[in-house]
Amino acid sequence: MLRIALLGAGRVGRVHARSISANPGAALALVVDPLEDAARSLGDEHGAPWSPDPEDAFGDASIDAVVIGTPTNTHIDMLRRAVAAGKRVLLEKPIDLDLARVDAVWAEIAPRAPFVMVGFNRRFDPSFREIRERVASGEVGTLRALRITSRDPEPPPAAYLAVSGGMFKDMTIHDFDMARFQLGEIAEVSALASDNGLDAFREAGDHAQAVITLRAASGALAVIVNSRSCAYGYDQRLEAFGDAGSLEAGNWTATTVRASGPARTEASGPVLHFFLERYLPAFRAELDAFVEAARADREPPVGFADGRAALALAEAAAESVASGRAVAVP
Amino acid sequence: MLRIALLGAGRVGRVHARSISANPGAALALVVDPLEDAARSLGDEHGAPWSPDPEDAFGDASIDAVVIGTPTNTHIDMLRRAVAAGKRVLLEKPIDLDLARVDAVWAEIAPRAPFVMVGFNRRFDPSFREIRERVASGEVGTLRALRITSRDPEPPPAAYLAVSGGMFKDMTIHDFDMARFQLGEIAEVSALASDNGLDAFREAGDHAQAVITLRAASGALAVIVNSRSCAYGYDQRLEAFGDAGSLEAGNWTATTVRASGPARTEASGPVLHFFLERYLPAFRAELDAFVEAARADREPPVGFADGRAALALAEAAAESVASGRAVAVP
Amino acid sequence: MLRIALLGAGRVGRVHARSISANPGAALALVVDPLEDAARSLGDEHGAPWSPDPEDAFGDASIDAVVIGTPTNTHIDMLRRAVAAGKRVLLEKPIDLDLARVDAVWAEIAPRAPFVMVGFNRRFDPSFREIRERVASGEVGTLRALRITSRDPEPPPAAYLAVSGGMFKDMTIHDFDMARFQLGEIAEVSALASDNGLDAFREAGDHAQAVITLRAASGALAVIVNSRSCAYGYDQRLEAFGDAGSLEAGNWTATTVRASGPARTEASGPVLHFFLERYLPAFRAELDAFVEAARADREPPVGFADGRAALALAEAAAESVASGRAVAVP
Amino acid sequence: MLRIALLGAGRVGRVHARSISANPGAALALVVDPLEDAARSLGDEHGAPWSPDPEDAFGDASIDAVVIGTPTNTHIDMLRRAVAAGKRVLLEKPIDLDLARVDAVWAEIAPRAPFVMVGFNRRFDPSFREIRERVASGEVGTLRALRITSRDPEPPPAAYLAVSGGMFKDMTIHDFDMARFQLGEIAEVSALASDNGLDAFREAGDHAQAVITLRAASGALAVIVNSRSCAYGYDQRLEAFGDAGSLEAGNWTATTVRASGPARTEASGPVLHFFLERYLPAFRAELDAFVEAARADREPPVGFADGRAALALAEAAAESVASGRAVAVP
Repeated sequence: MLRIALLGAGRVGRVHARSISANPGAALALVVDPLEDAARSLGDEHGAPWSPDPEDAFGDASIDAVVIGTPTNTHIDMLRRAVAAGKRVLLEKPIDLDLARVDAVWAEIAPRAPFVMVGFNRRFDPSFREIRERVASGEVGTLRALRITSRDPEPPPAAYLAVSGGMFKDMTIHDFDMARFQLGEIAEVSALASDNGLDAFREAGDHAQAVITLRAASGALAVIVNSRSCAYGYDQRLEAFGDAGSLEAGNWTATTVRASGPARTEASGPVLHFFLERYLPAFRAELDAFVEAARADREPPVGFADGRAALALAEAAAESVASGRAVAVP
Repeated sequence: MLRIALLGAGRVGRVHARSISANPGAALALVVDPLEDAARSLGDEHGAPWSPDPEDAFGDASIDAVVIGTPTNTHIDMLRRAVAAGKRVLLEKPIDLDLARVDAVWAEIAPRAPFVMVGFNRRFDPSFREIRERVASGEVGTLRALRITSRDPEPPPAAYLAVSGGMFKDMTIHDFDMARFQLGEIAEVSALASDNGLDAFREAGDHAQAVITLRAASGALAVIVNSRSCAYGYDQRLEAFGDAGSLEAGNWTATTVRASGPARTEASGPVLHFFLERYLPAFRAELDAFVEAARADREPPVGFADGRAALALAEAAAESVASGRAVAVP
Repeated sequence: MLRIALLGAGRVGRVHARSISANPGAALALVVDPLEDAARSLGDEHGAPWSPDPEDAFGDASIDAVVIGTPTNTHIDMLRRAVAAGKRVLLEKPIDLDLARVDAVWAEIAPRAPFVMVGFNRRFDPSFREIRERVASGEVGTLRALRITSRDPEPPPAAYLAVSGGMFKDMTIHDFDMARFQLGEIAEVSALASDNGLDAFREAGDHAQAVITLRAASGALAVIVNSRSCAYGYDQRLEAFGDAGSLEAGNWTATTVRASGPARTEASGPVLHFFLERYLPAFRAELDAFVEAARADREPPVGFADGRAALALAEAAAESVASGRAVAVP
Repeated sequence: MLRIALLGAGRVGRVHARSISANPGAALALVVDPLEDAARSLGDEHGAPWSPDPEDAFGDASIDAVVIGTPTNTHIDMLRRAVAAGKRVLLEKPIDLDLARVDAVWAEIAPRAPFVMVGFNRRFDPSFREIRERVASGEVGTLRALRITSRDPEPPPAAYLAVSGGMFKDMTIHDFDMARFQLGEIAEVSALASDNGLDAFREAGDHAQAVITLRAASGALAVIVNSRSCAYGYDQRLEAFGDAGSLEAGNWTATTVRASGPARTEASGPVLHFFLERYLPAFRAELDAFVEAARADREPPVGFADGRAALALAEAAAESVASGRAVAVP
């Protein structure tokens, strides 16, 4: 049994709490949040104790692992303390908003050979995973091109925009990781972006949409089409195109019902609205993979280096937008 | 060059005229219709002479063949005279509304071994044809069940209902032929029908919808789902289900555009509205098959016996509705 | 908290156990199965006691309700004893294989006004439910026709065939209930069936496939297309066709991946294989509805009369096959 | 009646010949090709005279218009002579491979206010046209992003690669025009390309695939995904994404048949193989639009300036690939 403390009782924390409860090899040992009501309520829901102080997790020798779902600007502190306390870690993305800080914390903790898994849940999405496996099996021949469509249903509130680190580090980071998951290392990044003339994005110096083109070390190309809003829901699609064919993952709807009438036929309902619905099975599978690797003392399936690499791509994309040049990834 | 006289310048006659003009081995030699304006206008459009009198076709030795697209109650007279004049014949369905008359005319003309093709254009639809060929190739294993969906966009006018011979002989006859085309001979028919409580159908003693179940001599079952109206257009689908899989033909839309918005996703436009649009390629291919067989002196690809068999199924279905019994087909 | 004893630790029992554990208002109080290993193993998995004797459920005053998932031939005995003990009951379908016995037990227990819900889980399928709600909202106008496609992936073993009660009572009974769920009461049944020339079915006097046509009291028609085997998985579809349009529920696949290559495009994976996968959410929602109604002291959402009506339709269908006549439903 | 001389009896010339014959307001007055066999054969097929010498077209006062479907390196000479002779012109794309030469010929012929239509047939594709009209009607709100997928089934032969002018001018030029058709003027181009490590492309200094990102003057972004080969046929899709929803045009298959079996479900046939099949209705509609505008003395629906603009985008894309910079379009 892996005894897990959950740090952060917000939206994503609640998802993790449910996944922990559902995993027969894991137990939710503690819920930590400085907002005591949130910690208590989530703990009660799962029959787990709670605390406002993460030290109650780090200092408890009976706790094997922590899931860090706190605000991004606390990630590095939590990570450092968790590793120092010998805990296994599942850390929400992004590791941090600054690549230099990420490298610094790694230099510090690496000597301990820590078990740190980064929360790129989409790697555990059954459709994206099936594509990777079928590509690996040779079904589409040499993989030449990847296309990722990734559009949020609604822009975040202005207050969040201000601290999000920008679209590339906050949202596209999932897509950068997906590109690496499907294609391996990325060599070059080129991006165009737009604020769509909207004040909220302009004032935050951020983007309402972007097209990011990548060249993988393998020579394959990838394109990511991003938007911060999408009228028909959470648009999450992927195409892997190779010499012998292609594989495409489409969107999910809540039911299979299709309507036909005088004006239109075979109309499906809107796609699942946002990540809590769309990627719920992926979050569950991610937590299961974390528990399994932690209990078996194996490498985490998504390592710290993966979190760092996605952040480096986000910085390269931002530099490409600023300079108008394709940027080599070091 | 096969010189063809077209008898009947109505809706289906105009379709045939265009097919004849487009066939490089055929020539439209004469357009005949007692409505002189209709005959003249269609003849002019195709640079062909016209006449109100079918005798101008039968008596013209330079004319090789006639296409009979006149009202159903004239079919037998036209057919008898055309065969007597030694013409090859493409006859629109149904041959007649009365099986006894059909058998009588055949007894009369059979000694001449006439070339008579019956206009079941759907046999030439590329999708239905592909299904038949793939079934024949063994792709779905033993064929066990056939499902035909056949719904007209709008009911015919009351005046037409009165002379149509009823839904089974007027509309379902195409589906009976399709069942034979895909399954071979039919041994048993059972049908339920409804006038949907609508005066127009009740007064005509006719049906607004029906479900007809067939048992083929092979043992396979088939079901035909019919409706005289359909809000989303002309619903024409077919499923062939066998031990090793199934093949389904869906509806056609005018373009491939699909719309997504807040209330629905991947909505296609309405399906093609009626038979002139939906089966235009089938009518063209039918005429081409007629010309090819006639010129090569081969058997017509859809014979008189096929026209008779579909009519016999229509009579059996009507008897099943009346008696509440499954009816054996003689 | 509704304390539930589960009678039957077989395939469907295990599904119910999981649903009970997941429902926050219910507790699995006891697992009963004469096969002690099965009872113990399922009980242990959910941290619940177990027993080989149903009397341990009926005689325990702390138990509020029982879920009866035992073999069909024990249903009536279990039901009688559960009701006598004052338990609320969720009873798997069919109630029994004999309509007379069903009526007899009801005459006996009715005076107690028992809470008996019958396990037609498909009523809780999100897609079928959505169709019913949208039809009720008037979206397709007057409902005229229903089409149910229901094909099992593989035939049951011969040993099961011998005791199944026949396809209509074992398999189609779900579809009969679905027809009533969507259309209301059924007035007339007509059916054709075939053993497909297979020994297993012929020897059991049973069917490999059938087409059943229904006329609802409302005048609408319905057709059920059944097969005991289906190469591409568990084919479960439904179409509701009305004056203003149609609603169709399609099959589920495990992922949204579609493959394209030289021979075919947009090929999806096989459909979910059988009822444990396909209807898992429906089983869960069914149990939740049972718990909710039982705790609120409301009518069960699927009553004993629904179980009886579906059985009456199965008997009528069998009579139609035998007599070749459409059969009125009393 | 618009009397048209066709210059060039190759693949695209034969398509135009058929369109001219089918247009009731046009007549094929002459077929010209230095390959006398090709000219004769095509002329005979349509009952038109033929000649090896274009002067027979330019010098014939009874000829109103010419369709120029000769090799690209003869376009400017043919255009200059046709305009000098007062003919209306439909000119296949690209106008020429060199923007300076294009500007020079225009400076020369512009004073005559010539009627020159450029053959971007895809503007006449029913699906792409429907998208433009529905976007214009406001259906998707402000148009923010366009996605064009354009993949040829097979790479051209090496001999053609050497004279094609490169992928951008030969193939992408259609997509550049489509971007302008849907979005209006383009302000900025950025492109990544790859030869996929294939000798044929490397030796020609050309690309096997590319991703081209555009920023429209309106602020919208567009991305073009190109490949010189595609295992599943001619992949031609388009997505218009706006604030209120999206419109997508998919691929065409020859029939609507979908197959299901143990390994896959709803598999369609391969998409239409290449432009002669896929865009046949578009070529027909293009010729009809040319005839209609020429006869009505209206502006051609696709002008010389459109041909020039697409070429300018191709040059900008090539410059972006070479420099690694986003390139402003003058």
